[in-house]
Amino acid sequence: MKSKAVFYHAGCPVCVSAEQQFVTALDPKQFDVEVVHLGTQPDRLGDAKRAGVVSVPALVLDGAPFHINFGAKLSDLDA
Amino acid sequence: MKSKAVFYHAGCPVCVSAEQQFVTALDPKQFDVEVVHLGTQPDRLGDAKRAGVVSVPALVLDGAPFHINFGAKLSDLDA
Repeated sequence: MKSKAVFYHAGCPVCVSAEQQFVTALDPKQFDVEVVHLGTQPDRLGDAKRAGVVSVPALVLDGAPFHINFGAKLSDLDA
Repeated sequence: MKSKAVFYHAGCPVCVSAEQQFVTALDPKQFDVEVVHLGTQPDRLGDAKRAGVVSVPALVLDGAPFHINFGAKLSDLDA
């Protein structure tokens, strides 16, 4: 069974670069990858917070948050 | 041809967690992954710096540095 990977971003240049290189680098046999743009999908902010995401871009692998470089704080997206 | 991915770490708990989840998540068809422990391989600090790595754990994909969470500053390892 594949694991779930969720890549949270907010459209910033750092996010886009990370998305293009990181998301495509994951093993497609191991992961179903979902890409969530928190700027256009603010209803997913709750999911991101519950997974422990504090900044974007971030990748949640099997429920564990990994913050990749730094684009923006989650709190700055939560208007 | 496979791309080169280098995972730099320093044996810290944050590093080990990132290594176990991240390195194994990369697509083995796309990447040859090398894991470098900068504590035991200080001769590799120059490579890490030249790739733009400023903290560990970090993954360099095709020459671009991605800092994953935060374990230690590279400058703290460079005694």
